[in-house]
Amino acid sequence: MSDLLFVDWMAATQARCESALGRFLPAANGIPARLHSAMRYAALGGGKRVRPLLAFAAGELTDAGAERLEVVACAVEMIHAYSLVHDDLPCMDDDVLRRGRPTCHVEYDEPTALLVGDSLQTLAFELLAREPLGEPARQLEMVHLLAHASGSQGMAGGQAIDLESVGKALEQPELELMHALKTGALICAATLLGALCGHPMSVDQREALDRFAKRAGLLFQVIDDILDCTANTATLGKTAGKDEAANKPTYVALLGLDEARRYAEELRTDALSALSPFGARARRLTELADFICHRHF
Amino acid sequence: MSDLLFVDWMAATQARCESALGRFLPAANGIPARLHSAMRYAALGGGKRVRPLLAFAAGELTDAGAERLEVVACAVEMIHAYSLVHDDLPCMDDDVLRRGRPTCHVEYDEPTALLVGDSLQTLAFELLAREPLGEPARQLEMVHLLAHASGSQGMAGGQAIDLESVGKALEQPELELMHALKTGALICAATLLGALCGHPMSVDQREALDRFAKRAGLLFQVIDDILDCTANTATLGKTAGKDEAANKPTYVALLGLDEARRYAEELRTDALSALSPFGARARRLTELADFICHRHF
Repeated sequence: MSDLLFVDWMAATQARCESALGRFLPAANGIPARLHSAMRYAALGGGKRVRPLLAFAAGELTDAGAERLEVVACAVEMIHAYSLVHDDLPCMDDDVLRRGRPTCHVEYDEPTALLVGDSLQTLAFELLAREPLGEPARQLEMVHLLAHASGSQGMAGGQAIDLESVGKALEQPELELMHALKTGALICAATLLGALCGHPMSVDQREALDRFAKRAGLLFQVIDDILDCTANTATLGKTAGKDEAANKPTYVALLGLDEARRYAEELRTDALSALSPFGARARRLTELADFICHRHF
Repeated sequence: MSDLLFVDWMAATQARCESALGRFLPAANGIPARLHSAMRYAALGGGKRVRPLLAFAAGELTDAGAERLEVVACAVEMIHAYSLVHDDLPCMDDDVLRRGRPTCHVEYDEPTALLVGDSLQTLAFELLAREPLGEPARQLEMVHLLAHASGSQGMAGGQAIDLESVGKALEQPELELMHALKTGALICAATLLGALCGHPMSVDQREALDRFAKRAGLLFQVIDDILDCTANTATLGKTAGKDEAANKPTYVALLGLDEARRYAEELRTDALSALSPFGARARRLTELADFICHRHF
């Protein structure tokens, strides 16, 4: 796939992930059928698949095989899908639209959506522990890495800080901690897990990749905040303007739109400079960071 | 601990688990403090700790060390605690009392309780992947085993069948499938994980233990159904009679009280006979099955 244009590489990778998710998810008619059908509804059929794309792009740094990359990409995407289903629930964001379709609890019902989120999380770890990914000790490290990035000191912890901060004026360091956990941790995990599927990295390489991933995670969030206030619901496939409506702290609220854009550009430059030790192998990651920075949805 | 009376062994093991959970859970003042404090509230301070007791008792079959047993016991108990927090939510059982105290969403709030359940699940897998438990390949198998037992083809799947079956008259095979998943799968996992912390088992031993664990899981549920209709709320520390009130299928509803008691006795005998290949090493498991059968809370 190395000779493909970026847009074609992206489409091919997204299609590959969709197909792998379809295989890894339980069949829609397997007992309990309603739960399994709802899990497939929540995880399949759309999404930008940014985390899988990062895993595949990072896999090129270490020459990782596509079969292993499918496993880690799907595990990370299941964690992401679970978090969306739970975030959309009435007791959280109470949202009705996701990826241009009714949210899981609207299409099914609230107890089912709760179990869908729970079960997608479990399946992510089942997959990562079950499928062959090389050295068992390294695979255990991968399970640990994904768990730590997802839990109360990662994604779920960021969500908790977000809950506590509604209506409060956060300073930039607090806002960055919230986002570093809420979105950043899983984006870092996707990137590292992808690279861990291939040849071992040196300590320096791993640190460089970690630095790239942290900047890319923050960049993704800054752009998300900009889009939430500049794009419309139809383009986003989810409710636009809801951060501002909920009085949530965003980079745009904190810095203003122009300064937020300038900050995004700075993060992009920083992220790309971290990739220099990898040379030409970093081509897809570079293209992906550019894409994240310039996306319109 | 092998010279202790069963009641003293049980108390010592429960205290050991409580202390280990206290160490493995995030500190109550670590950011995000409200989430971490709520996780501790939900997982500490009570419960019969049946699954940890099973793990420790099964560990005696293979001479497993206490440090490893603490890890698997806490991981299983975190999965159990997460399931209780989510089951108690307004969109599920909408319960206000658990272990004699307000349920997590009553003591804290609903979004926090949702994140508590999510994060306790993640922490279970983080623990099981992070702590040293011997051979990495076997440890990966343990992560896989716990995940499979907890997900849509295990505990969460049983919960989904339970949701679908309210108000329906289930036949005994369907009721048993529901319970085999909802309670049985995690009880089996606790038992197997405990034994997997020690010397390798032969194929025959593993099959025997699996047979014991399946019977013990079913026994636990039959007794639970009997207690739900014969004991009172104060003794149970949770709302009594709610299965009948919710028109949920139970063994008592299906078989009548006397026949349910007879069936429990049959399951106990079956479970104990499965332990014969282990000889005197099965003493704690035997005592525990007796205790489960004759408990009053």
